[in-house]
Order: sequence, then structure tokens, then C-alpha cells
Amino acid sequence: MKLPVGQAILGANDRVAGENRADFARGGVFVVNLMSAPGSGKTAILERTLAALAPQRRVGVIEGDVQGRLDAERLLRVADVPVVQINTDPVYGGECHLDARMIRGALPQLALDALDLVIVENVGNIVCPAEFDIGEDRRVMVLSVTEGEDKPLKYPLMFRVADALLLNKVDLVPALGTDLDAYRANVARVNPQLPVFALSARTGEGFDAWLAWLAAQTR
Amino acid sequence: MKLPVGQAILGANDRVAGENRADFARGGVFVVNLMSAPGSGKTAILERTLAALAPQRRVGVIEGDVQGRLDAERLLRVADVPVVQINTDPVYGGECHLDARMIRGALPQLALDALDLVIVENVGNIVCPAEFDIGEDRRVMVLSVTEGEDKPLKYPLMFRVADALLLNKVDLVPALGTDLDAYRANVARVNPQLPVFALSARTGEGFDAWLAWLAAQTR
Repeated sequence: MKLPVGQAILGANDRVAGENRADFARGGVFVVNLMSAPGSGKTAILERTLAALAPQRRVGVIEGDVQGRLDAERLLRVADVPVVQINTDPVYGGECHLDARMIRGALPQLALDALDLVIVENVGNIVCPAEFDIGEDRRVMVLSVTEGEDKPLKYPLMFRVADALLLNKVDLVPALGTDLDAYRANVARVNPQLPVFALSARTGEGFDAWLAWLAAQTR
Repeated sequence: MKLPVGQAILGANDRVAGENRADFARGGVFVVNLMSAPGSGKTAILERTLAALAPQRRVGVIEGDVQGRLDAERLLRVADVPVVQINTDPVYGGECHLDARMIRGALPQLALDALDLVIVENVGNIVCPAEFDIGEDRRVMVLSVTEGEDKPLKYPLMFRVADALLLNKVDLVPALGTDLDAYRANVARVNPQLPVFALSARTGEGFDAWLAWLAAQTR
């Protein structure tokens, strides 16, 4: 039987994601896949999250970018944690997302037995990353209040597969005149169960609730 | 000779893009492909651009979205122009970009002979749309000042293929403390020839220069 190309690729991805998941379970590691559009603040959220967690928890990071290691360097400045960089260009044809095979290729560089939590920062994109299981335990999406409250309706898959939504940059609400209720209402139309944490990676507002949720997942 | 899948797909795309380009030339239509991350302000820029141009120029729009027709409805509220909606989901497998074949499928709904300018609003994504020629004359990228000055270094292809960059939301510079020179310096590292127009779709600041550039291209 021949599958259409897209289905065959996703089938192969799911098999490798299963292998990743088995390795994470063996290592006792909880894995979070952090996804958003470019510039929503994934790295800034990671900086503040690592600064809060790293003293107590053994955290590692996998950084996904098309090119460069700017984000990895930012993280290493705030926390003494292992960070593995994946560049989709040139190694993986400049892909717009991480897939299970890329994560698998990065695993030998992470000592899973010595970690409790791995956070994967995906490539900035809210379409394709939602389609690729990488073997994670939870999918966390970031949406910033500068992006517009219509995003759940225009890119619904990411909001459907997410386990939590971080609504970032709420410190800008006064300058923007943002209607946070409109964001919440559109999120609820697409995924009524999705927990939404309004926060600011700049000021730290709202981080307690997000960190408490994360701690509850990994308990 | 067998080409790798990726190359074969791009080869087929370029052939269809050539057919689109020939049709646009026959109709005397200048075509702009407008690309950015989700929430950078493509639609807001289009609203203000159409409001300025539509009285004098015969403008049409092709709207690309994964789902829905929210943007098309926004545009129809500000200008009496033909707007054709392309949804990549469900018709095109939820693709994260427009390609030449999707544009070709939309052309029968646009009377090219009755138009001077067609603006294509691509799907919100700054990776894949840069790889797909749709038959356009110019590629215009939007980057908002809320997204971070590191973006040219992390997603260089889009900045390399663009013919102009609209640096949007400059009305937020005071609230954000944005260093616009840092944006310009990183853009110049990736594409020194790229003209950059700092503007705000909210206030209209900077639109004169962008509209003058656009008029000069289509003269």
C-alpha cells in the first residue's frame, strides 16, 4: 500500500516521536514543546522560567532555529543549564518546524538521566510545528497581545493541540488598548479547555501562575 | 532523472509561477506579495494602503489564510475592491504558505484586465513563503517592532528575497523602548540593499514614503 507523501512523512515522524518518548520516560524527563510565532517572546519566557526553576530543578533546553544560536546564547547568560542547538538550515533544508527526527539527532548531546525537565523551543511559526509530535509531554503555546485577538480563528490547529496558552506582553496592554477578554473569547471558541495564563516576560507579572501550572504537570 | 522531492516540488511551482506571471503581464497587472509573521500587521497595512490607493488605482487583493475570511471582511469594510480568499485548510492540506498553484486556482475569480495592482496577503509565516515564487513582481515583508531586532539573523531568507521591508508599529517605540537602529543594522547585515520603511498602520506615520515607493515601482 502506498500512502500519500504527507501521510507517509507524518507516519514516520510519529514512529520516531514514540522512540523519543520512550527515551524521555526511561530518563525520567518531562518534556515541554514551546511554540509560537516569531517574536511572541518564547526566549524571554524561557529566560525568566529558567531563572526561577534552574536552582531547584535539573532543566535542559533544546533550541530550534532556522539559523544561528542567538537564543541559546541568551539562555546561557541567565542560567547554567545544558542547551543543545538545532539549526534547520543548513542541516534540515531550512524547515519551518522541528520534527521528531531532529530531536532524536540532538538527544545524544543531552544527559537525560541527569535532567528532570527539558524545554524545547520550537522554530517561530504557528502552522507546521502543531502538526509534528516530537515526543513531548505537553505543548505550550505563546501568543503575544501585540499579535491580534483574531489569531485563534485564523490558526486554529495550534490552539487545539496546545495544553496551555501563555498570553505574553500584558505589560503593553495600556499602550495598546488591548481587549484581553476578546483574546480569551476567541481562544475559548477554538479550545474551551485550554488554560490561559496572561503574563509578561518583561515585568514577571503572571509568572507565578504559569510556574505553578508547570510544577503541577511534572509532579 | 529523478529529483529529490523538495526540488521537484519547487521546480513544478516555478513553472506555474511563470504561467501566473505571463497572465499578470498580459493583463497589465503589477503584483505585490506581502509577507510577515502572524500579527505583524499585514492586514492593517493593507487597509490603510487600499484606503489611500483605491480611489485612483484599480486594486485587487488575494487573501491567504489557513482558515476563515476575517481579513477579507476587514478589507471590504474599508475599500470597494475585489478580494479573493484562499484558505489553505481544508483545500490545500493546511499549508503554511501560498504557492503558485493556489494563486493560479484563484485567478479565474479576478478580472485582471480591469486591474492595475494586485496585492497578495500571504499566510502569516516568515519561513516557507520566502521559498515559493507565486509569479509576483515585488516581495514586501512586514516586521513589527514588537518582534525583536534579532529576526533578520534568525530568519535570513525572507529578508534576502524581499524587495522592501515595512517596519510596522513604530507608534509603540516609546512604550517598548525599541532601538530602531538595531533593527536597521541587523537588516543591513543580511541584505544591505533592502529599503526599510518605518511606519505605523495605526497612526499612518511613515505611509507617504511607502506609498511613494510603491507608486515608483509600478510606474
